[in-house]
Amino acid sequence: MSRPDTPTLDKVDGPSDMTALDDATLGLLATELREELISAVSETGGHLGSSLGVVELTVALHAVFRAPYDKIIWDVGHQCYPHKILTERRDQIRTLRQKDGLSGFTKRSESEFDPFGAAHSSTSISAALGFAAARDLGADTGHAVAVIGDGSISAGMAYEALNNAGHDKRRLIVVLNDNEMSIAPPVGAMSRYLTGLQSELGGLSASIKDHARRARALVTGQPDRGTLFEQMGFTYVGPIDGHDMGQLLQTLRAVQSRADGPVLIHCCTVKGKGYRPAEHSPDKYHGVSKFDVLSGAQQKAKSNAPSYTSVFGHALVDEAERDPKIVAITAAMPSGTGLDFMVERFPERTFDVGIAEQHAVTFSAGLAAAGMRPFCAIYSTFLQRAYDQIVHDVALQNLPVRFAIDRAGLVGADGPTHAGAFDIGYLTHLPNFTVMAAADEAELIHMVATAAEHDGGPIAFRYPRGTGVGVDLPAIPQPLPIGRGRIMTEGNDVAILSYGAHLSECLMAAERLEAQGISATVADARFSKPLDTNMIKQLLRHHKAMITVEQGARGGFGAHVLEWLANEGGFDRGMKVRTMTLPDRFINQASPMEMYEDAGLDAAYITVNCVELLGLVGGRFPAPLQA
Amino acid sequence: MSRPDTPTLDKVDGPSDMTALDDATLGLLATELREELISAVSETGGHLGSSLGVVELTVALHAVFRAPYDKIIWDVGHQCYPHKILTERRDQIRTLRQKDGLSGFTKRSESEFDPFGAAHSSTSISAALGFAAARDLGADTGHAVAVIGDGSISAGMAYEALNNAGHDKRRLIVVLNDNEMSIAPPVGAMSRYLTGLQSELGGLSASIKDHARRARALVTGQPDRGTLFEQMGFTYVGPIDGHDMGQLLQTLRAVQSRADGPVLIHCCTVKGKGYRPAEHSPDKYHGVSKFDVLSGAQQKAKSNAPSYTSVFGHALVDEAERDPKIVAITAAMPSGTGLDFMVERFPERTFDVGIAEQHAVTFSAGLAAAGMRPFCAIYSTFLQRAYDQIVHDVALQNLPVRFAIDRAGLVGADGPTHAGAFDIGYLTHLPNFTVMAAADEAELIHMVATAAEHDGGPIAFRYPRGTGVGVDLPAIPQPLPIGRGRIMTEGNDVAILSYGAHLSECLMAAERLEAQGISATVADARFSKPLDTNMIKQLLRHHKAMITVEQGARGGFGAHVLEWLANEGGFDRGMKVRTMTLPDRFINQASPMEMYEDAGLDAAYITVNCVELLGLVGGRFPAPLQA
Repeated sequence: MSRPDTPTLDKVDGPSDMTALDDATLGLLATELREELISAVSETGGHLGSSLGVVELTVALHAVFRAPYDKIIWDVGHQCYPHKILTERRDQIRTLRQKDGLSGFTKRSESEFDPFGAAHSSTSISAALGFAAARDLGADTGHAVAVIGDGSISAGMAYEALNNAGHDKRRLIVVLNDNEMSIAPPVGAMSRYLTGLQSELGGLSASIKDHARRARALVTGQPDRGTLFEQMGFTYVGPIDGHDMGQLLQTLRAVQSRADGPVLIHCCTVKGKGYRPAEHSPDKYHGVSKFDVLSGAQQKAKSNAPSYTSVFGHALVDEAERDPKIVAITAAMPSGTGLDFMVERFPERTFDVGIAEQHAVTFSAGLAAAGMRPFCAIYSTFLQRAYDQIVHDVALQNLPVRFAIDRAGLVGADGPTHAGAFDIGYLTHLPNFTVMAAADEAELIHMVATAAEHDGGPIAFRYPRGTGVGVDLPAIPQPLPIGRGRIMTEGNDVAILSYGAHLSECLMAAERLEAQGISATVADARFSKPLDTNMIKQLLRHHKAMITVEQGARGGFGAHVLEWLANEGGFDRGMKVRTMTLPDRFINQASPMEMYEDAGLDAAYITVNCVELLGLVGGRFPAPLQA
Repeated sequence: MSRPDTPTLDKVDGPSDMTALDDATLGLLATELREELISAVSETGGHLGSSLGVVELTVALHAVFRAPYDKIIWDVGHQCYPHKILTERRDQIRTLRQKDGLSGFTKRSESEFDPFGAAHSSTSISAALGFAAARDLGADTGHAVAVIGDGSISAGMAYEALNNAGHDKRRLIVVLNDNEMSIAPPVGAMSRYLTGLQSELGGLSASIKDHARRARALVTGQPDRGTLFEQMGFTYVGPIDGHDMGQLLQTLRAVQSRADGPVLIHCCTVKGKGYRPAEHSPDKYHGVSKFDVLSGAQQKAKSNAPSYTSVFGHALVDEAERDPKIVAITAAMPSGTGLDFMVERFPERTFDVGIAEQHAVTFSAGLAAAGMRPFCAIYSTFLQRAYDQIVHDVALQNLPVRFAIDRAGLVGADGPTHAGAFDIGYLTHLPNFTVMAAADEAELIHMVATAAEHDGGPIAFRYPRGTGVGVDLPAIPQPLPIGRGRIMTEGNDVAILSYGAHLSECLMAAERLEAQGISATVADARFSKPLDTNMIKQLLRHHKAMITVEQGARGGFGAHVLEWLANEGGFDRGMKVRTMTLPDRFINQASPMEMYEDAGLDAAYITVNCVELLGLVGGRFPAPLQA
């Protein structure tokens, strides 16, 4: 692959190399930075569109502010590739999102130019206000600048931070990067308001009306226009054209030198800017796989199995065909969760509430209280944001909200910020909940059916990112008996009790054990709550030892099995039981299987642990025995 | 105690009895309802001020809307006492917040007039939108009305719901009950904005400027005034005087008959209205104990021990005197958390961010990233709202935020919605965290010191509601060695491993066991992470059995002990271990000790479980053995 010619960029290792550059050269730098970005991401894949949109903004921020003394905090952080190239990481940029490579997000441990890591949305203003408050108490830090997209500003915590910052009156700079998109086109009143603001304040420029993408410069000192942000206590500057280096530099310099309170700079950009395929299909180029620069054609992963996401989406549509009370809720991820199939078939029964997981869950609870059957589809890692609503509005009221939890377990290139590690624990300890994990895509279909008919209280089912294992899909979904697991293969020596999608690893381990003359039973627990206590008793009765396996942190399925067992007296006269979980640390990005290997949680580890547990040869546990 | 004379109220059992009443009689009804409310709460204690503020609003809502077909959803629900009196629960109103009595909040299981329970703030708009969406899909329900205070609207999830509802354009009614207070006077830009709105729209009336408490009526059909709510897509109506029955009825009737989209009614009320002591000291009458109606004098609980809250507050001030980097953060609870002492001594180092737990935690993380030593003081139950921020912004980045977790365990009259049941589990399974629980108030002081000097990562310490056990307070706080417990009393037969404030119950159980000739060791674990594995090994080695005891749900301290033990091979040759936790159900309000008794978690249960575990006589477990 030929790499672009970048003479100006080649002279810039870090922001300090930019101080000598005049404005015209900064423009050149941006052009070359964009070329380098496209070239790099064509090799690695990643969040192309968002990064393309902020190339000029990134150059201008680093030209005007003095990082790392000034703190530039990118919200979500998926738009930070140009920032990484300009901050001493260009030599690693082609390792983006790879094992041992650069993170796809900002990360404190990676660089002093990343003062606050991110990956979940809407945290930047809170963090920046923390830096600003510390500065005003004497910490050795300068300006605090949060760069946040219009999609992210729809989440509650961004509003909480604006509300606090506008009251607090401390010097703080928020750059609102308004590209009329988060991942999908954003919904919500705030989004519409911003578009209106562009039109209203943009005045006569014809191109403003063309999606307000060329806005005029309004620097500080404008009369109070009564924008929502001014009403909240911010000085509002903008809208400005985020691809016009002159406007950007002028505005940022004015704010940098004159701000003495909270300032919001409304900066309009185009997602995918400067790369035609990405500009034309911003949704398809939000996250890309490797692609051909000239044609824009993305490499597609080949698979014979459908993704869990699409299996869920289709299964839910099938249930919704049968039952008019079924509705679906997503927090700004209709395509990521597979609910786009519902949007297509039942638009009026599908609700995209924006990046607003808290509201999504309590809204679902309201629907359930009114007699509907809501499926609330949120990734495991993002569901953390609605934990109180799950406890207080769903579990405590015993309302039958169905939680479809995609991206459970380790997720690969997105790394530890997106891992679905904790949901087994944080749901299973809640009264009234039924909690399931799908072992494969056929099971997922049955679990959708199980949840659909379960009106007795809240129910959740988790499933991993990526494609299924390739099993046949059932013609007719069968609701599962609540709290009943299943035996997959029968043996005599050791029982492997799998919970969720590591079942395939457990079955592989059983084969390897067989080759060593060890006979293993593999069972699929299906439920972490209620537990199939009869099946567990049978497993213990007929085997010398048992290992539980789950794609989640300690304190999860295995711990609940142990707690039940201990209180049943199951350990009183001796019982060899071990749990295999994610270890007590965060696992860095790699392929999911590499991550599980790093975690000590794959077929090889399961095999060796079974062998050791039976006392045949020495083995190893992730946490070694120290008697 | 003489009860008020209430001839009009006596004829009203439920809202259907109000349909025949003319407006003047509704005014009379409100007057009598207020008398009855004051009389009842003087006997029970409770949230007096908030309920006094909405007496007229409650009467007007029930006169205009047709509950339970129309859904009236009270945000937080602590202002619902007049609503309960008018909705078939007057005969029980003097059991408020007592064991087996009425809940102090709205509760679905209590009445069909409570369509959605509450207790945590800011959930009402989301829930109401759920009912509205269900209605529009054919559910048999009418208007959806959310009544939310100005303090609650500062939380992110209220904004998420407004943002979604304003975009959605569905018929929905939000009554903003603006009393310029939540518990403490509210902070934040939204609050200031609302006050400004009252003044601006209130026009010439002199009394408007007197805290805008008598606002003029602005019914529907007003020209667009460009309020923030209108910018978000709502029809804005107000401000109106929430104590003027005429204005209320006129406005609500107009909205009831004409609304065809989202409407926000800005209703100004006075907290404590109509009872002079409460009007004059709204903070002291937010939550009251039993009081004398004539004088307003509240009964004070007598105690020789200080509250955990005040011990924490003073200990933190002491640490802050020594260390200028210590700062404190509260989410609208300066007095409830004991941070009022910090506010007094170090106002510039204490941050009240409003009802905004998510922002509070990430703001704390920002402060920590800038080198400060933040103490983020949030009740256990409310910390649930910041769970994602704890995982993503604190644990993953290993930032040394100190979490002071008050109201851990069961809390008494506030009931299950305020129980701090899950924090042990949801924190202990997070990598990088250190998690402690204080056994008594002296321990709490040491834990504050431990947290102050712990710069290696996040650290949390939990402590219960109420007064300490009366131990001597240390003159000099001693930071505890991380991950080290302590032995309290030594015995030979059974080991009781306590985590947190149930230590006193464990010691009491040991005494009772002693009387039965059983010798118990009682240990205080202090840490659920890292575990004192050496101490646990010693306990197992020298006793026939061990019981763990904690004030929290399953999947907590005991489960983590079991998971460690199992993976160490500790059960392979037999080991009698049991966990005592809260049971797998929510515990209804009563005194905390009654609640623990209900939970099967007090000295008596600990005693009998130890006896049984040693096999001396038959005993009982909360979950009985069924071999």
